[in-house]
Amino acid sequence: MKFRKINSGICIDNFRANGVKKGKYGIAIIASGKVCDAVGVFTMNSIQAAPIILTKRKIKNGLNAIIINSGNANACVLNGVRDAENMCRIAGRELKINPANIGVASTGIIGKRMDMKVISELTMIATNGLSSSPESSKRAARAIMTTDTFLKEISFEYGGIKIGGIAKGSGMIAPDMATMLCFLTTNADFDREKLQIALNNAVEDSFNMLIVEGDMSTNDTVLLMSDRTRKCNFNDFQGLLDYSAKELARMIALDGEGATKFIEVAVRGAKSREDARIGARAIITSPLVKTAIFGENPNWGRIVAALGSKIKFRFENLDIILESGKKKAIVVKQGRIKDLTDAQKILRNKSIRIIANLNSGKESATAFGCDMGYDYVRINAGYS
Amino acid sequence: MKFRKINSGICIDNFRANGVKKGKYGIAIIASGKVCDAVGVFTMNSIQAAPIILTKRKIKNGLNAIIINSGNANACVLNGVRDAENMCRIAGRELKINPANIGVASTGIIGKRMDMKVISELTMIATNGLSSSPESSKRAARAIMTTDTFLKEISFEYGGIKIGGIAKGSGMIAPDMATMLCFLTTNADFDREKLQIALNNAVEDSFNMLIVEGDMSTNDTVLLMSDRTRKCNFNDFQGLLDYSAKELARMIALDGEGATKFIEVAVRGAKSREDARIGARAIITSPLVKTAIFGENPNWGRIVAALGSKIKFRFENLDIILESGKKKAIVVKQGRIKDLTDAQKILRNKSIRIIANLNSGKESATAFGCDMGYDYVRINAGYS
Repeated sequence: MKFRKINSGICIDNFRANGVKKGKYGIAIIASGKVCDAVGVFTMNSIQAAPIILTKRKIKNGLNAIIINSGNANACVLNGVRDAENMCRIAGRELKINPANIGVASTGIIGKRMDMKVISELTMIATNGLSSSPESSKRAARAIMTTDTFLKEISFEYGGIKIGGIAKGSGMIAPDMATMLCFLTTNADFDREKLQIALNNAVEDSFNMLIVEGDMSTNDTVLLMSDRTRKCNFNDFQGLLDYSAKELARMIALDGEGATKFIEVAVRGAKSREDARIGARAIITSPLVKTAIFGENPNWGRIVAALGSKIKFRFENLDIILESGKKKAIVVKQGRIKDLTDAQKILRNKSIRIIANLNSGKESATAFGCDMGYDYVRINAGYS
Repeated sequence: MKFRKINSGICIDNFRANGVKKGKYGIAIIASGKVCDAVGVFTMNSIQAAPIILTKRKIKNGLNAIIINSGNANACVLNGVRDAENMCRIAGRELKINPANIGVASTGIIGKRMDMKVISELTMIATNGLSSSPESSKRAARAIMTTDTFLKEISFEYGGIKIGGIAKGSGMIAPDMATMLCFLTTNADFDREKLQIALNNAVEDSFNMLIVEGDMSTNDTVLLMSDRTRKCNFNDFQGLLDYSAKELARMIALDGEGATKFIEVAVRGAKSREDARIGARAIITSPLVKTAIFGENPNWGRIVAALGSKIKFRFENLDIILESGKKKAIVVKQGRIKDLTDAQKILRNKSIRIIANLNSGKESATAFGCDMGYDYVRINAGYS
C-alpha cells in the first residue's frame, strides 16, 4: 500500500483547528462541520484525570469539537470534572455547539487546580481564529506541546480515504508533564463499532509499543473523529490508520526527553505474538540498554538479559542485528558472538534499529523508543 | 526479637573464607568443616549462566565449599559449564574436598570466555590462605565486588543461632556487571526442605523487593549452607534469616550505581499483599520517581501515577508521607495536597522513606532502592 502524504495536518476536508499559548498554558481546538462519530483509547492508569472521565461519557453521543489544554493535567484535584465541563461550556458558547458534543483533554502538572481565567481567555481567542488552513493544524499541534521540542502532525491519503492527526508527548514516560495525547480525523465512513476496532488495532502496534504501555500517565488519550463522507474498504482504512499512528508514535519516540537517538526494536521469530511484543518492550524499556545506546556501546549482553528476564528463548538460537539506514551489523548469530567493530560504527548514528531474532517461530513485533542520557536526568530531576 | 551483631562475617563457628583479586578478576572461597545442607535461590532469567546450571545440580548433595569469581559472568559462552567444573576441580584438589560438593558462582561480563589461567592461579592462592578470622570474611566479600563501592557482610546471633553472610551487587540492575550474589552460613539444625522454605521466605521480602526482581541478571544467586550444629526453633531462625537478608539487601540498595540517596518504599493499607508488593516495586522502579528524589523534588504526582499504572486504588483515600530518620512530612492526606515545605527539607537527607497508605485494607510491603542521577548514566553508558 502506497500512502500519499498530504499537507493538511488535522484539518482534512471540513475539519478546522486553532491553537494559542500563554505562559505555561496552551489551548487547542479541533472542530468539524457536524457531529462526528468518535471513538477513543484512554490510559489504563487506575487514577484518571477529570477530562478523561468526562470525555469517555460524551464520546458515545458523537463529537463536534475537541478542546485540549496544556499546562495542567486537571488530575487529582477537587472540582476537576466541573472545570473540564466549564472548558466545554465556554468552547460550546463561542462555537455555537452543544457542549455535550465537545470532548476535552488535558496535559500538564498533576494536583493543581487549573487557572480557569487563563483557560477561558485562551479558549475565546482560539475559537475565534478557527480555520482549515495547514497553518491552523500546526498552531493546534504547537499549543498542546509541553516538554516536546517539535510539533507532531501527519496527514495521509489513500484512494480517497484521508487521515489527519496531531500528537504531543516526548517519548519517556513522564506522567506529570509528558502525557501522550493524539487526535485523529478521518472521512472514512464507518460506524462507532468499526472505528473502535480500527483504532484499537492501530494503537496496539503504535502507541502501546512506545516504550511501555504499563506506565501510562493519568491523562493519556487517543481520539478519532470521522465525518463519514467517504465510503471505503475497511482494510484500506485500517492500513492507513496503522501507518498514521505509527508515524506519530515514531515522532514521539524521536522527541524523547533528553534523547539523542531514536531506537526501534524488532523481535522476530517468536513462538507467539505476545512473546514478541513483551520481548520488544523489555529491550526498549531497559535503562541499561538505553544508556548503552547513549554511550554508543554495542552491549548485546544487556539485550540478552532484558529479553531473558521477560520471555523464554534459547541463546543458541538467537541472532542480534544492529541497523541504521541501510547499514547492518550482525552482533550475535545463533548464539555466537561476532566482531563488534561494525556495530560500534552503526551506533554513532541518530536512528538505530535493534533486531533480535529468536529463530523459534513466525511471530514478530516492533517497539519504539529512545536512548537515555544525562539530559533525561536533568529534565526529570528539575523542580516542577 | 533482639538480634545481636557479632563480628565474624561469613566465618561463623567453623566456616572459613578467603578472597584475592588480580586486575579484573577476583576469587573468593567459603569452606565448612564438613558437607553442609545447602539450598539456593537463583535468577528467574531464562538465560542462565553456566555456574548456575552446575550449582543447581550439585546443591542437592550438600556443599562443603563455594568458589566465586568476579570479573567474568561465564554466561552465553561455549564451554561455560566445563570452565565452571574446572574451577570446582581446582578448588577441590587444593582443599582435598570432593568437587561434587563444591558450589560455584560468577559475576562480571557476559559472553567472554574466562581466563582460566588467572582463575586457577587465584584459586590456589585463595585456598591456601583460608582462615576463620573476621578479616578473611572481609577479604572474600571484597574479592566478589565489581562496581560495588563498599564490601557487604553481616553476622548476627539470636539464642545461639548464628547467621553470617557476604553479598555483592550495586543496587541498579546491571546484568552484565552488577549481578546480585549472596552467600549465607548458619549453624541452625534444619534439613534442606526447611532451609529452602526459610530462604524462600527471606528472599521474598529482601532481595526480591530490591528495585525489581523481574529484571534479574543471568547470574543472580543466593546460597545458604548450614552445618546443623545448633538445635533451635524454626520461627527464631526465620526471624534471624529475614533480618540478615534485609540488612544485606539494604546495603546493596545503598550502594546503587551512581546513587546519592537510599530509598525505602512502604505501601500500606492495601487490600492484598500482592497489591502492596506490586505497588511498592512500581514506585521504586519508576525512573521518574528516582530522578525526582535525586533532584530533591517532592513530586507526589509521579508516585501516584506509578502506583496507579500497576494497582487499583482511590486517590481520595490515599496518604503519601515522606520520612527521614525521625522527621516526617505528610504530602497527601486522604487525597488532599499538603504544603510541601517540610517534604523538600526531608529530601535533602541521604536516606528517604516513602510511605503510600491506600487506606483500603491491612496488607503492607516494603521495597528497597535508590535514586537515579547523572552518575547512573555515566557508569552505564561507559564502554565495557
